Amino acid sequence: MQEIPDGERRTETARLEGFSDAVFAIAITLLVLDLKVPPPGRPGLLGELLLDQWREYLAFLASFATIGVMWMYHHKLFTLINRVDRTLLVLNGLLLLGVAIVPFPTAVAAAYVRHPDAKVAAMFHTGTFVMITVIFRLLWQHASSRNRLLAPGANPRVVGVLNRISAVAPILYLASFFLASVSPLGSTLLNSAIVVIFVMLIP
Amino acid sequence: MQEIPDGERRTETARLEGFSDAVFAIAITLLVLDLKVPPPGRPGLLGELLLDQWREYLAFLASFATIGVMWMYHHKLFTLINRVDRTLLVLNGLLLLGVAIVPFPTAVAAAYVRHPDAKVAAMFHTGTFVMITVIFRLLWQHASSRNRLLAPGANPRVVGVLNRISAVAPILYLASFFLASVSPLGSTLLNSAIVVIFVMLIP
Amino acid sequence: MQEIPDGERRTETARLEGFSDAVFAIAITLLVLDLKVPPPGRPGLLGELLLDQWREYLAFLASFATIGVMWMYHHKLFTLINRVDRTLLVLNGLLLLGVAIVPFPTAVAAAYVRHPDAKVAAMFHTGTFVMITVIFRLLWQHASSRNRLLAPGANPRVVGVLNRISAVAPILYLASFFLASVSPLGSTLLNSAIVVIFVMLIP
Amino acid sequence: MQEIPDGERRTETARLEGFSDAVFAIAITLLVLDLKVPPPGRPGLLGELLLDQWREYLAFLASFATIGVMWMYHHKLFTLINRVDRTLLVLNGLLLLGVAIVPFPTAVAAAYVRHPDAKVAAMFHTGTFVMITVIFRLLWQHASSRNRLLAPGANPRVVGVLNRISAVAPILYLASFFLASVSPLGSTLLNSAIVVIFVMLIP
Repeated sequence: MQEIPDGERRTETARLEGFSDAVFAIAITLLVLDLKVPPPGRPGLLGELLLDQWREYLAFLASFATIGVMWMYHHKLFTLINRVDRTLLVLNGLLLLGVAIVPFPTAVAAAYVRHPDAKVAAMFHTGTFVMITVIFRLLWQHASSRNRLLAPGANPRVVGVLNRISAVAPILYLASFFLASVSPLGSTLLNSAIVVIFVMLIP
Repeated sequence: MQEIPDGERRTETARLEGFSDAVFAIAITLLVLDLKVPPPGRPGLLGELLLDQWREYLAFLASFATIGVMWMYHHKLFTLINRVDRTLLVLNGLLLLGVAIVPFPTAVAAAYVRHPDAKVAAMFHTGTFVMITVIFRLLWQHASSRNRLLAPGANPRVVGVLNRISAVAPILYLASFFLASVSPLGSTLLNSAIVVIFVMLIP
Repeated sequence: MQEIPDGERRTETARLEGFSDAVFAIAITLLVLDLKVPPPGRPGLLGELLLDQWREYLAFLASFATIGVMWMYHHKLFTLINRVDRTLLVLNGLLLLGVAIVPFPTAVAAAYVRHPDAKVAAMFHTGTFVMITVIFRLLWQHASSRNRLLAPGANPRVVGVLNRISAVAPILYLASFFLASVSPLGSTLLNSAIVVIFVMLIP
Repeated sequence: MQEIPDGERRTETARLEGFSDAVFAIAITLLVLDLKVPPPGRPGLLGELLLDQWREYLAFLASFATIGVMWMYHHKLFTLINRVDRTLLVLNGLLLLGVAIVPFPTAVAAAYVRHPDAKVAAMFHTGTFVMITVIFRLLWQHASSRNRLLAPGANPRVVGVLNRISAVAPILYLASFFLASVSPLGSTLLNSAIVVIFVMLIP
């Protein structure tokens, strides 16, 4: 990339953030398409059928919350990052790929929730989160190591917190991935718990 | 959250508004996927089939209008709010969750419109609006009580109007929720009437 | 609506434009979901099946072009409008409703293209455009009559051109609506021709 | 188009970019709907079924990467272009049409990946990329020839690089189009390789 003055660089970040925000917002809203209308059948059954889908709703909620908290941290990162290089562009592209894919494993997890293969489906679901958090870690590491792309006044305490959280996140989701091989429901609940912790730790 | 100067805080609000706007816009536009093409059958029937879906159209319109008016009020709120804290972030996330879900209960209501369980479906549909307006109330209460997150020059008259409307909205939708258990159509019409009132009362 | 200083009014317009742009962009992109993958069948047939869908593609293109040109004119309008009142908010909401619905009549037109009811489907499709252009005319009339919501320096020549085009548009689409009752294909082609004319006339 | 002062012209570009960004972001995120949940069947099969879809994933990835890199270059172009005329508006509309369509040929390619007609499907898929890159070339040629719409300070080296890349892109995709008639998989892999090269060459 050519040398560009500081003003244009900020614009560069702005449009990258805008595009990323749009992908986050679309992916999080498309998740609703994974919720299926129970096929009309015997009268008096609908209430029961809707309640019976609680595991599908949990899978939806875990994905919604995960994309939401990813957006919050992405947002936080880009209050510190003020330059863009090719590697950041590629890593951000991979991150968006991960986020945009989420509706698919969520649909798989929801479709197999009552099937003997529910464990595999849950591993596929949580595995996507492992992948996303690994890319997130790489992106942050690239941007922050030796302050490569950080704004001059980036708060070192915030940088430190993001270092630790981005390192721990893939480990937590990996634990949840293995938990899924035993208990799909346990994994979905752990995923939601991870999100709550992340929201509370946001610097 | 760390202490941040006023300028950055405004930016913080701006990106939250931008993300919220995108979710509102996507959810409101995705509703169209709930309108189903009548399966091609006997010639000469299409006009009738399309007209016959008027209750599905009403369910769609009620959801469209409700998300639309929610956007207007959300927008109005954020002309008064100029700071973001963690609780606001979480409540706004829950609000977006409610808005993003709307296409699902709308689809349920439309699919069951001619089914004996239409009442349950309509309660599910209107129940979502109850939930959304309750979260909206909590969000506004958090932001406005003791001017916690309001801009210094926030017009007290407007704040007062929003206090009253946000308190009344869940009650109106709750009434419509109970009406749905008797008359799904009556509930849908009441939902639309509520929206008209809210548009007229917007300060 | 309360009295607000000029600066905030511009912001008000900006967020309305942003929300409208998002709905236009989502509706225009959702149209692709109306294009159906031919169900895999006898080998060697796919090329033919894809070519055979040319009328479906035309219906898609007419909708895409119409939403696109609507966006261009909406955009042009809001370079002249710099105030927002409740009526504008409501009319703009109705316009977005019309735009967001377009994928539904397009799907109907595409699904019935080879069915005896193709004429009814085409009338439903073009009828939506009549409705949208009527709302567009009302919106512009409200904003421009006696310069109600126009910026002080609004170019009178541009205002005049928009007056004439917004008045003629519903008439052209109405002609196409009646043409659809005779020739669905003729109507779709006329719709495309109307768009070309509108693009050339954009002031 | 009327004569407009420089400030407004920049705004004009800004809204065009914003609308284009939204269409790019929606199209890239809608691609996920092309990934299909394997219908629940015999227990123990899900892992295999998911792995078995690797060619569908590749088709998805090729489309995702292509739209992504198109966005990057579109973005780069509009750091150089600072005026809008009718031809640019139309060519940009055609470009967005191409981008918005991508989920359809991707779905065709994915649905026919194990069918004897996979070659035709792959040609349809890659043919869309040929079309998009041709429009891209025309757009850039119109904007840059005799600096028609370029900003005064546009870097001649960057302009030169974009000239060459936009001229070569359609040729590369045309080669991949013909490759698809022999090897669908080879064509999909070549499409991905082209994207990698384009990312590395971005000026």
